Amino acid sequence: MTIQLYELVGKDDRRFSPYCWRTRMALEHKGIDYETIPVRFTDKDLISFSGQERLPVIRDGETFVSDSWAIAEYLEGKYPESRPLFGGDIGHGLARFLNVWADRVLHAALIRLVIADILDHVDAADRNYFLESRTARFGMTPTEIQTRSEDDIKAFGHAVSTIKAALGEELFLGGDNPAYGDYIIFGAFAWARSISEFSLLNADDPVYNWRNRMLDMFDGISRKSVGYEV
Amino acid sequence: MTIQLYELVGKDDRRFSPYCWRTRMALEHKGIDYETIPVRFTDKDLISFSGQERLPVIRDGETFVSDSWAIAEYLEGKYPESRPLFGGDIGHGLARFLNVWADRVLHAALIRLVIADILDHVDAADRNYFLESRTARFGMTPTEIQTRSEDDIKAFGHAVSTIKAALGEELFLGGDNPAYGDYIIFGAFAWARSISEFSLLNADDPVYNWRNRMLDMFDGISRKSVGYEV
Repeated sequence: MTIQLYELVGKDDRRFSPYCWRTRMALEHKGIDYETIPVRFTDKDLISFSGQERLPVIRDGETFVSDSWAIAEYLEGKYPESRPLFGGDIGHGLARFLNVWADRVLHAALIRLVIADILDHVDAADRNYFLESRTARFGMTPTEIQTRSEDDIKAFGHAVSTIKAALGEELFLGGDNPAYGDYIIFGAFAWARSISEFSLLNADDPVYNWRNRMLDMFDGISRKSVGYEV
Repeated sequence: MTIQLYELVGKDDRRFSPYCWRTRMALEHKGIDYETIPVRFTDKDLISFSGQERLPVIRDGETFVSDSWAIAEYLEGKYPESRPLFGGDIGHGLARFLNVWADRVLHAALIRLVIADILDHVDAADRNYFLESRTARFGMTPTEIQTRSEDDIKAFGHAVSTIKAALGEELFLGGDNPAYGDYIIFGAFAWARSISEFSLLNADDPVYNWRNRMLDMFDGISRKSVGYEV
């Protein structure tokens, strides 16, 4: 049975949702057969069956699941025989910590460096939707948010240095192989490269090398997706 | 074979090192026979055999290990048949992330709420050592650091809300039972209660209930230790 992954898409087939990347990498990790269905902001009627408006959504036969975290839990529970995403209760709880941290700290810092670049990489109708919805959410326009001030760059650098310290000498957060924790973090970088040329990592940073390893995973599926070279 | 745990101690047998608490809980978790050897700041010659000056240090027969993280890895590797601290490579890598976060974010925020209270809970010789070493490290005195400003309280609250979100509906970060990730976080609270009356958590916060569960673990070993009621 092929799973359908409903995925946020911009101009030129750019996949720019960090959450959709988490799910896509999780599906690849588990070796599950899937197809992606691109959804623009203004095409949300495509996922009305899910009873909500956020992406990603997966449909697995008669079952549908929304929210990247809930999807990861679903995949781990439904396909326990394939490569583990969490590695048991302990890894599951700690991955959730990372999930929270990524949303609150990593994404919050990254937004200030790349959010306005999204405006140039979505279709006209989506551009208006994005501009209005984000201005309402944040109380300022994406262009006002994306200041790339010294403090903003420092805050993102602090988040990166936390990832660096956590990696230590390991290849991945999951050890010799990536696991869901790696995909949580990688989603942020996959999102950024799809819509922004802004350089987030220095080539001498171990996190840069980790990102390269992630871009190479699964026959380079993320590296081959539409985006900027990083 | 009984392991010796060299542990930082203040006045009235107060155990006020978050790192020593991580190790102590890890030893309890694994059900390893151990005895503690209290060490004051000015008694560091007791651990000169370890070639460094930081606590905790454990001695397991002819082997000694310092640094709480290295000790946890050592215990997991040496005693694989007892309850797992990490639950495999995935849990190990994510616990390291949490270890980094706790040191950089949780402790950094907590210090501003309780560090000066340490001065009242160590012996006279240790008081001078602590005052001078911390003033040199931070560029200001503990009393200057411990402002408990609105911003400081907010920063600590933000760290706590991250723990709360990560716990969700679970009893522990490790799921139905605690694991090393829980001990990493708990070390901060065990440290605080040993030397400070300052209230860190509201009774209606799920993290308050989690802390209570942690205080009850292993026949209430941490609750029974010298400290304030929290």
